[in-house]
Amino acid sequence: MEVNNTDMQGDHCGPDRPAHPGIFPTGEAGKSEHKPAERSVDFPVSVVLPAGGTGERTGLQTPKQFCSFLGRPLISYTIQAFERVSWIQCIVVVVAKENMDLMTDIIQRFQHRKVRVVPGGSTRHRSICNGVLALGEGDGEEQSPAADRPKVVIIHDAVRPFVEEDFLYKIAMAAKEHGAAGAIRPLVSTVIATTSEGYLDHSLERAKYRASEMPQGFTYDVIYQAYQRCTESDFEFGTECLHLALQYCGTNAKLIQGPPTLWKVTYKRDLAAAESIIKETLSQSACIITGGSAHAATLADGLQKAAEGLHMELDVIQDLMGENTGYLLKEWNFIQISVNRSGLSEVEDLLKDLEAVNRALLHPPVIIWVHLRASDEPSISGTVAEPAAIMDLASAAKLRNVLLYGIQVHQSKDTERWERSVLKVAEITSALIRERSPALVGQLLQA
Amino acid sequence: MEVNNTDMQGDHCGPDRPAHPGIFPTGEAGKSEHKPAERSVDFPVSVVLPAGGTGERTGLQTPKQFCSFLGRPLISYTIQAFERVSWIQCIVVVVAKENMDLMTDIIQRFQHRKVRVVPGGSTRHRSICNGVLALGEGDGEEQSPAADRPKVVIIHDAVRPFVEEDFLYKIAMAAKEHGAAGAIRPLVSTVIATTSEGYLDHSLERAKYRASEMPQGFTYDVIYQAYQRCTESDFEFGTECLHLALQYCGTNAKLIQGPPTLWKVTYKRDLAAAESIIKETLSQSACIITGGSAHAATLADGLQKAAEGLHMELDVIQDLMGENTGYLLKEWNFIQISVNRSGLSEVEDLLKDLEAVNRALLHPPVIIWVHLRASDEPSISGTVAEPAAIMDLASAAKLRNVLLYGIQVHQSKDTERWERSVLKVAEITSALIRERSPALVGQLLQA
Repeated sequence: MEVNNTDMQGDHCGPDRPAHPGIFPTGEAGKSEHKPAERSVDFPVSVVLPAGGTGERTGLQTPKQFCSFLGRPLISYTIQAFERVSWIQCIVVVVAKENMDLMTDIIQRFQHRKVRVVPGGSTRHRSICNGVLALGEGDGEEQSPAADRPKVVIIHDAVRPFVEEDFLYKIAMAAKEHGAAGAIRPLVSTVIATTSEGYLDHSLERAKYRASEMPQGFTYDVIYQAYQRCTESDFEFGTECLHLALQYCGTNAKLIQGPPTLWKVTYKRDLAAAESIIKETLSQSACIITGGSAHAATLADGLQKAAEGLHMELDVIQDLMGENTGYLLKEWNFIQISVNRSGLSEVEDLLKDLEAVNRALLHPPVIIWVHLRASDEPSISGTVAEPAAIMDLASAAKLRNVLLYGIQVHQSKDTERWERSVLKVAEITSALIRERSPALVGQLLQA
Repeated sequence: MEVNNTDMQGDHCGPDRPAHPGIFPTGEAGKSEHKPAERSVDFPVSVVLPAGGTGERTGLQTPKQFCSFLGRPLISYTIQAFERVSWIQCIVVVVAKENMDLMTDIIQRFQHRKVRVVPGGSTRHRSICNGVLALGEGDGEEQSPAADRPKVVIIHDAVRPFVEEDFLYKIAMAAKEHGAAGAIRPLVSTVIATTSEGYLDHSLERAKYRASEMPQGFTYDVIYQAYQRCTESDFEFGTECLHLALQYCGTNAKLIQGPPTLWKVTYKRDLAAAESIIKETLSQSACIITGGSAHAATLADGLQKAAEGLHMELDVIQDLMGENTGYLLKEWNFIQISVNRSGLSEVEDLLKDLEAVNRALLHPPVIIWVHLRASDEPSISGTVAEPAAIMDLASAAKLRNVLLYGIQVHQSKDTERWERSVLKVAEITSALIRERSPALVGQLLQA
């Protein structure tokens, strides 16, 4: 039973899919959206993603790879990390038999391409082996001719979603040159050997050892042969693919130090860390739409200045026409400033635009409607109708995975008061964008 | 230069300080407030807390131990973890000379007792050694008589704030019995040895090795002698105290497997994980105050049911008199339901009560004012005055480290509509309590 999804979404194929760029940080601090790497590889590379884990160490019922972040399972983030790399051809996801249907649903729901799902084995090595064999199969279960097989196979964990293209490139190139390559990280703790009675035997000299991490890369021939030759005991108790390559193919893997972003979601606390990285990456910038009003432009300028202190970059535009349509394809946060009372029509248009480009497929975009009220406008006028209107609109938007919030701010000729209001709009905006709380959509907040 | 803070807060001394119980989770999931351990030790135990790190691995300017969570630096959480243990006598914090003043400020601001601050050395071992020597000093710099010295010294990291009393007990007892004891954890990654050219040499058999973590415990004599006998090279390049005890005192440390809560805040992502654990621990429960109104009691019942699905326990009480004053000392979240228009007076009283018990010293308590409006009350009546009133009150409360938010809900005789409103109040309440966002205080949200 396999699901070949490569051709499911013809309209989204191709290496550049600007509607859904990756959101992966370039470092842990994650300053920018993914930028396409300059380098490419000229040989076929495919990926095996074992995702059969049961999530024991998180203490949760749901295995980690299926835990959701902003409505999307972790495994989908990891798949996306590979899918956006133009030179990667096929991603084989290996899942426990009982999760095959769930996995197939995830692939369809988030419109993943390049993906095949194969059933796992009873241990990690058996699962990876299944994935490697699947890459070598043609339409039937025979090994396909060498020309159709990938030159290099990258093996990764489903629970390391933040792997970046640059590092995958290094692993692929080193695997091709040396037969095998693996990511390493410095040890965080001293490693010690224990006696059978539970006492310290000796401690290892930290400088001589490294933690072996993922991804690892192998030429197809090396990893295929390693699994052909290894023993039942290796299949049962082994964990380290690099070890099999060394023992059964005599291949000493090239080791490459990876960035901290390679970390593995292991414990419950790691789920919080992953969510925080995802949210932070989505909150780097926002686009302010003024609609051309001078009052709105003044507010936008003030917000832009205030946002610097809040570590968020704001672009100010008049509308989403012409060149500015590009924002619909790259921005996750929109601040629509309205100066008149029927301002929600602009938000309605924005919602339609986002829907037209399928923007909410992978992450929920945020829209913040900032209603700038004239100082002489009686303050009671809008408070009855607007809260209900924005709540209704937000409920509808939420069904389409868009988070809509409102902020009311009064114009003031008192400079100090006005500056305080602008700062407050900036703080509320920043908090709403960072937290992306579904429970607070539709609220009309006061600045 | 030392700051002896033991007697600074006479009124807060003693092992039971109910106004500021610990908030440390019993597992990673952190189900309950700290419960005093049943066991105690009958010999003197003190702690050395090296906090001289520079935070390189987080990529931040502020060293990790001084990063703030809900307005309080990490080191203060770690100090609190020891301070609340009745049988721990003194905590020596070792900080870099340039941070002595900062550390002294932190101790005064959060009213820590039992703490001494001593200057660190140029390496981790030199800093720990300074801390051990400080424990052995009397008023001068002479070693004090044995009777005044601790029997056991626990060494911990400033950046492992979630250590629990039960585990400290195990370490202290094992250290007394065996001379030395240390926490271990299973290895998360395979450990490999590398060749000098950066290739795989061999991988270690994971089952035979463990990660050495903190806390570690030693009898005073063992750790003192280990530092007296070790070499300059140990001081310069060593990291593992257990190793010194073995090499210089012939003491094989007893190794005890610790819980995952022992983890060390190392990378930037760990800051997010720590914040999430702290927030989760503060959000386990809330106390609903009905003021005795039947309508409020109905809403409270509905909220209690809805909260089960939101993993929050709600206690319903009429007021904070008599036995219920205990909630002021143990609860972090209060939901005040008001049915009349002048309902903010009840919130004002609650603020005064919290201030009287100094409740906001270590964490910001949350107050949610739920205004239940009669269905026939014209919906416009309160909307002008109330938003300004609650915003003003919230601004004042925030200065006292209390987070105040408001929710308006309309009574309805339409059961379905009413149930939807109740669920919405529960969802908003849960989100506000979990997120504890300072930017949103004073908002009057609509359910």
